[in-house]
Amino acid sequence: MFESPKRLKRALMVIQDGVGDRPVRSLGGKTPLEIADTPNFATLARTGMCGLMDPVAPGIRVGTDVGHLALFGYEPLKTYCGRGPIEAVGIDLDLKPGDVAFRANFATVGEDLTIISRRAGRIRKGTSELAASLNGMKLSDGTEVIFKEATEHRAVLVLRGNSLSPLVTPSDPGPGMEGEKVLKMLPLAPTSDAQAKTAQLAEEFSARAHELLHNHPVNLSRQNKGLPPANYILLRGAGVKREMRTLTERFNIRGACVVAESTIKGVAKLAGFTVITDPAFTANLDTDVIGKAKKALEALENHDFVVIHFKGPDIASHDNKPLEKVRFIEKVDGACGYILDNLSQPDTTYLALTADHSTPCEVGEHTADPVPVLISGYGILADRVDSYDERSCAEGALGRINANEFLLSVLDLIDASYRIGC
Amino acid sequence: MFESPKRLKRALMVIQDGVGDRPVRSLGGKTPLEIADTPNFATLARTGMCGLMDPVAPGIRVGTDVGHLALFGYEPLKTYCGRGPIEAVGIDLDLKPGDVAFRANFATVGEDLTIISRRAGRIRKGTSELAASLNGMKLSDGTEVIFKEATEHRAVLVLRGNSLSPLVTPSDPGPGMEGEKVLKMLPLAPTSDAQAKTAQLAEEFSARAHELLHNHPVNLSRQNKGLPPANYILLRGAGVKREMRTLTERFNIRGACVVAESTIKGVAKLAGFTVITDPAFTANLDTDVIGKAKKALEALENHDFVVIHFKGPDIASHDNKPLEKVRFIEKVDGACGYILDNLSQPDTTYLALTADHSTPCEVGEHTADPVPVLISGYGILADRVDSYDERSCAEGALGRINANEFLLSVLDLIDASYRIGC
Repeated sequence: MFESPKRLKRALMVIQDGVGDRPVRSLGGKTPLEIADTPNFATLARTGMCGLMDPVAPGIRVGTDVGHLALFGYEPLKTYCGRGPIEAVGIDLDLKPGDVAFRANFATVGEDLTIISRRAGRIRKGTSELAASLNGMKLSDGTEVIFKEATEHRAVLVLRGNSLSPLVTPSDPGPGMEGEKVLKMLPLAPTSDAQAKTAQLAEEFSARAHELLHNHPVNLSRQNKGLPPANYILLRGAGVKREMRTLTERFNIRGACVVAESTIKGVAKLAGFTVITDPAFTANLDTDVIGKAKKALEALENHDFVVIHFKGPDIASHDNKPLEKVRFIEKVDGACGYILDNLSQPDTTYLALTADHSTPCEVGEHTADPVPVLISGYGILADRVDSYDERSCAEGALGRINANEFLLSVLDLIDASYRIGC
Repeated sequence: MFESPKRLKRALMVIQDGVGDRPVRSLGGKTPLEIADTPNFATLARTGMCGLMDPVAPGIRVGTDVGHLALFGYEPLKTYCGRGPIEAVGIDLDLKPGDVAFRANFATVGEDLTIISRRAGRIRKGTSELAASLNGMKLSDGTEVIFKEATEHRAVLVLRGNSLSPLVTPSDPGPGMEGEKVLKMLPLAPTSDAQAKTAQLAEEFSARAHELLHNHPVNLSRQNKGLPPANYILLRGAGVKREMRTLTERFNIRGACVVAESTIKGVAKLAGFTVITDPAFTANLDTDVIGKAKKALEALENHDFVVIHFKGPDIASHDNKPLEKVRFIEKVDGACGYILDNLSQPDTTYLALTADHSTPCEVGEHTADPVPVLISGYGILADRVDSYDERSCAEGALGRINANEFLLSVLDLIDASYRIGC
């Protein structure tokens, strides 16, 4: 059923995760954005205003969660609640006040709790049955366990009880730590009763889950096939949900986000956005780029602000594959071309290009380098920048701004403004 | 003994105190940085990223202490504790909670406390004997006096007693006030008992010190030689030490600072840095510039972050000597050339140029003008700026940032990062 737009003007924001880079030796000292053939980005730059954007502030590195919280209008230094609650929202778990949510991984451990595979061999099937066997567990003090699988090896644990605290250390030693033992979970402040109790309950859950998973039919069948059993739940990112006004409510807009990755889904839902996804959207380099463009065009028919998220650049960067990054950027450029060709209201639709953070290929992780940004559309004061890349955008009229400011600048163009004074 | 670096990458930050300037009439409307012949700064600019830096924020003037606190990672608007405690740390006085520290000057006063010389004719010799005669004094309520000389006419007074407050007015009317009387020290809030008591104790100290100094052999001997006696202690900059985490602890780095001036020594020590100095380092125009470069290169062998401080530009500026400023800048450029030629790990060492504030020669004091900054090293997105000066750097890719942000950006390049989120 067609619903007419609430506002006359609309905006589409394209987020290329981790697209910002530094000069790459194998690309002759150019960045992937500088090397990529991107005629549509160039059109947008020529007709738009460019700049450099810090997710939070110059010199501060952010995770994907914090980078997106900032792009969706939250001030991370004030409102960051930990990764657990964001993941929980991403898979539609309803958190109540006092609930402590953890990111969880299905993992494989040996007898002395040595980690054999931190992702249980990237398990994909059977996780809902495994999760069901843990969900509903009652811990010794009556605390309730809510446990639900997410994509692949990922899951979320929620502890629902009295006087719990998110300030506990993780049991997960982190990526690349196979061969290490599972960490003992501890209170951050040893003098806090709530923290000590929560750490102890998380340890109790982990031990009982280990026992239950050990003999679970899914794992017996995996072992018969020579696959590593998902016999342990690694925990990290504990947090409690904060009550925050949604972006859509604050600015009286209808928002939609075309996305595959669960973290970004969580942030988008927190912000009040409709999440639009599809099995062909993989949060990886093989995602259906044009499919996302089509969904975004559809969403623009009855939303004021549409965000498309592409995970590809970040994946290629973490693996130090600059040429794959270049190729993916060119696909996103193609998707922007498709959008430009098919906008139903080109005179009243603004296009914005941005990223959540930089992930330079040669560094292989997020850095604090600012990312190039661009806004294009009717009435924009086009500057002299004619290319969307790190060095060109440094000379743009937007100057150097942060992600909150960039978002507000885009919203202002569609008259969804933050105004003070009369 | 050689100790290998903790981190793979290292950074060297060169601070030219007060180097920022405005067009100078006698230099044909150019600034000292624009006029100076600085081929090494030019090399760094060509290969680096430039920008303009505000010590705190646009339009805010700072002292040397605050400018350096900001460059060492403290947020001055939140953490500034007064100049007294910084000077105390600079001369290794150990402050306890509740101690109130003052900057002190040996001065010459006439009979009615009229100031004849605010620096006792820039006294250099005999100050330790004079200080010893005051140190250990017990004031009427039992408050203990700790008094120690610093460089030249400078000294530090610490009052150690019960219920003292740093919120008292100075007795020192400030530079250029010869002919005026010593000011009576008063509580900032007349209703505060602690402030009133502290002001009264400082007055008691001043009166008793005057009496003791009057007949001190050092002063009798000075008078015999026709030199002004150091017969009064002028006080200002009262403060209490704040407990602050050091920069080295916050970022898990080993820091060293090559420096002569006591204020900068104090800030560097507060920040957890090893202070490296030498009698040939004078905190003046005649300092051993290449000697400092050599010490910095040595320090880079077993520190992750090394700072070199040059006081010269500020001295020349306060005296409105633009040509001396130009000559000193050229010497610092030479020191940078020496460093570039002798870096043991050029591929993994970042060089940064900055200043604590601007001191335009024709103004003769600190102003709020932002200072040119630059970062150079492997992987830097070099912009089009090819000269290190106020006007050129305004077009650089770093844009306009503050001193905390500049520091974090440098630390990010050596992967000593502040990160939020996962």
